[in-house]
Amino acid sequence: MPEGPSAADTAKVTALLERGRALSTPVLRAAVGRLASPMDTVAAYHFGWIDAHGDPADGDGGKAVRPALALLSAEAAGAAAETALPGAAAVELVHNFSLLHDDLMDGDEQRRHRDTVWKVHGPAQAILVGDALFALAGEILLELGTPEAGRATRRLTAASRKLIDGQAQDISYEHRERVTVEECLEMEGNKTAALLACATSIGAVLGGADEDTADALEDYGFHLGLAFQAVDDLLGIWGDPAATGKKAWSDLRQRKKSLPVSAALAAPGDAARRLAELMTADAKKSQAEFEDFDEAEFAARAALIEEAGGRAWTEQEARRQHAGALRALDRVAMPGHVREQFTALADFVVVRQR
Amino acid sequence: MPEGPSAADTAKVTALLERGRALSTPVLRAAVGRLASPMDTVAAYHFGWIDAHGDPADGDGGKAVRPALALLSAEAAGAAAETALPGAAAVELVHNFSLLHDDLMDGDEQRRHRDTVWKVHGPAQAILVGDALFALAGEILLELGTPEAGRATRRLTAASRKLIDGQAQDISYEHRERVTVEECLEMEGNKTAALLACATSIGAVLGGADEDTADALEDYGFHLGLAFQAVDDLLGIWGDPAATGKKAWSDLRQRKKSLPVSAALAAPGDAARRLAELMTADAKKSQAEFEDFDEAEFAARAALIEEAGGRAWTEQEARRQHAGALRALDRVAMPGHVREQFTALADFVVVRQR
Repeated sequence: MPEGPSAADTAKVTALLERGRALSTPVLRAAVGRLASPMDTVAAYHFGWIDAHGDPADGDGGKAVRPALALLSAEAAGAAAETALPGAAAVELVHNFSLLHDDLMDGDEQRRHRDTVWKVHGPAQAILVGDALFALAGEILLELGTPEAGRATRRLTAASRKLIDGQAQDISYEHRERVTVEECLEMEGNKTAALLACATSIGAVLGGADEDTADALEDYGFHLGLAFQAVDDLLGIWGDPAATGKKAWSDLRQRKKSLPVSAALAAPGDAARRLAELMTADAKKSQAEFEDFDEAEFAARAALIEEAGGRAWTEQEARRQHAGALRALDRVAMPGHVREQFTALADFVVVRQR
Repeated sequence: MPEGPSAADTAKVTALLERGRALSTPVLRAAVGRLASPMDTVAAYHFGWIDAHGDPADGDGGKAVRPALALLSAEAAGAAAETALPGAAAVELVHNFSLLHDDLMDGDEQRRHRDTVWKVHGPAQAILVGDALFALAGEILLELGTPEAGRATRRLTAASRKLIDGQAQDISYEHRERVTVEECLEMEGNKTAALLACATSIGAVLGGADEDTADALEDYGFHLGLAFQAVDDLLGIWGDPAATGKKAWSDLRQRKKSLPVSAALAAPGDAARRLAELMTADAKKSQAEFEDFDEAEFAARAALIEEAGGRAWTEQEARRQHAGALRALDRVAMPGHVREQFTALADFVVVRQR
């Protein structure tokens, strides 16, 4: 893989994400403002608009890649970017509903360098506000009252169900020693790619695109999501801690059954066999014992994954999904500058360093 | 109040609920069958179709009053009862989504005489399966692909948001010493009446009724819900344990700020003052200390609530809401046998003993 994204791609992607955040944030704030107290405050904390004391904050509400995709998707269908705004906000609400619930289920105490909602406001508020954001998503779409809004909500609901299926699979895989490549890809398709796919079609649907166009855009988004996740899985093991902000070997520390691990275990040969033996022994250790491991232990596991071909396979998989995304894009007639941005985003995703 | 429902009303209501359950259960089972493993099993346990070991069970899945109302609602609009089936199942899915999450948030260990889902399958499954049922509700409605389904989903989403608001209010009231009658009514309107109101209009909407008809039916359902809850609040204090299956003074033991308590505290006079003093002292006690109370202590509190007029006010409130329900019904032209069933249900709700 190249050494990182080109300056031109980085500039395009940065501008795209900036626009997504700038246009969607007021819609999100208005939606959250509908919530009964104290859910409005808890949601504002989650989005980084206020701190734990209720004072205004300029927190990091995430990359806002989904709203950016939704706006571009409307333009792909020849509509104004603003046509997508209720869809952009709805997809972002569903994404944040899943973050609130997943952080609680997974016991994660930090998100975007801040304490998670369940940690600050308690589990009940994390459940409630997640539920409320999920309901708000349908509400702001359906109150448009158009057939397009009905179609958009149907796609969003289907994607939400996949998201929930993906989290269920992720949780059930934690209790297993091995996960096949196919199972891992299915889980990642549900948990990551489905909602990105929905974001990439929802603007077009609201802009009046036909189902074939919406399906092709969704295909682009689905491949983009799988490429993104493959790279995420690579960075989770071999990412530079200075760039990712995570500890070295982060996914190995969490014993995550990610693509490189599954691919390595599925390979023939001695490295795969030794890796499997280590992991069988690891599975008997508590998380605390495991975290006491020397750096060299994680480095040894990473080396075996690489030797067995798990790293190369995942890099190829990212490139396959990148190619799939571009092929899907070819099925849709769209203005040249819109296609350029979709392409820049796909390129950026596979060569990013964090 | 009369001594209980008439035999004729009881027979009508029993038949109505039986039909609701018989027609909606196969649709619910098919919907739940779409869930990824193990969510399908967890949901089947929650609905009482299987026991904790996965063996078939003939459990009590609740009264199924919402599906019954939805079917009747289609008939009120001149459509076949079956027209309402996706709506009947969707409302029941939202109801059960809220039960799964509320039981976890409230720490309730029993529901319908069985261990709750979070107790048997863990908190993560209770969150996940609740989310999945909520998403399924929108899915089975929107895949009808009709404008009526869009309208129905919009109403269901609005009701779901109220349900969540109501739970948020209920939780925040737990930490307060006093709740006004208005706050209590608002909370009960959100938590109980809104979804019953949606059930009562959703069949008509799916059957092609205009918005005025749907609104009138929703008004009937909202008043019915508030009447139901007022009676529930009465039974929670003065219900016969042999009939309700709950301990005597059940709501007092849980320090629930229900209507009779709020109304009593708002009254002038000595009884209200003495009740307020007792409750201020009670608020300083732990739940464990409180549960050690002698029966006579609860009886004394119940007597003060009655003396202050809280019982009589709540009985009047149930009658006011009953009258409101019948007035709303008068705004809709419908077949005589349908009106009779709506009336029998309203009558039954206010005179029931459990």
